[in-house]
Amino acid sequence: MADILHRIGVRTPTPEKVYDALTTIDGLAGWWTTSTTGKTDAGGVIEFRFPGVGGFDMEVVDVRPHEKVTWRVADGPEEWLGTTVDFDLRQDGDYTIVLFKHEGWREPVEFMNHCSTKWGQFLMSLKELVETGTGAPHPHDVQISDWH
Amino acid sequence: MADILHRIGVRTPTPEKVYDALTTIDGLAGWWTTSTTGKTDAGGVIEFRFPGVGGFDMEVVDVRPHEKVTWRVADGPEEWLGTTVDFDLRQDGDYTIVLFKHEGWREPVEFMNHCSTKWGQFLMSLKELVETGTGAPHPHDVQISDWH
Repeated sequence: MADILHRIGVRTPTPEKVYDALTTIDGLAGWWTTSTTGKTDAGGVIEFRFPGVGGFDMEVVDVRPHEKVTWRVADGPEEWLGTTVDFDLRQDGDYTIVLFKHEGWREPVEFMNHCSTKWGQFLMSLKELVETGTGAPHPHDVQISDWH
Repeated sequence: MADILHRIGVRTPTPEKVYDALTTIDGLAGWWTTSTTGKTDAGGVIEFRFPGVGGFDMEVVDVRPHEKVTWRVADGPEEWLGTTVDFDLRQDGDYTIVLFKHEGWREPVEFMNHCSTKWGQFLMSLKELVETGTGAPHPHDVQISDWH
């Protein structure tokens, strides 16, 4: 089993805006993909689509206001099925710290390398969204390679 | 044991420029830190310094022209000691694909999350350097959090 880890600090006085960006359709559409629909409450399913690339259905398994969001991958690329995506939030002075973990990859395949770099870019997009009001969600995301 | 993985694709017709950016002092200073000195041949030690933040001494353990570069961390933060940093290159059409692995972390500590995101940004800096002639090495690097 292998995990993707990231850490960003978002300059904002409380975790509220970061939490909202992880738990509302408008927020998620502002940093990951503009094509986001579904239900963001615990037990709901959020459909993230990347036209021309693919998509993911995420089951919301845990939401703790201003502290934690956990999704389980219900549908998507085979390598993602059954993995979990976890955002832990805490306030450190002027920053909301986001500890990210995409956990439970069966094998460290090349696609995992790609997803690790891409998650890093999307987390920077989340930071930009909260700090400036504008993120870089798909299809406006940073291209990192031939794989998008 | 835990690893940091990344994958970027650099738009360039052969792996030569990417390889040069990994195996010359000027190249390394163009994407990781401007404060780079030392010897980049196998058996050499490269000193990377990040004034105000810290630094790393990397022993060059493997260099295969246009294919592979491997370093072992000889000095640096305690969590990095004994870990290895590996760049695998291959040409896929218009892109030089870089598979990156920072291998052998004893524990997935929070600093590992930070380093994962930061490596991703520096690899994007490597991509920019080769594609445009200008990277974003320290102290011009993208700030991702309170930890730099």
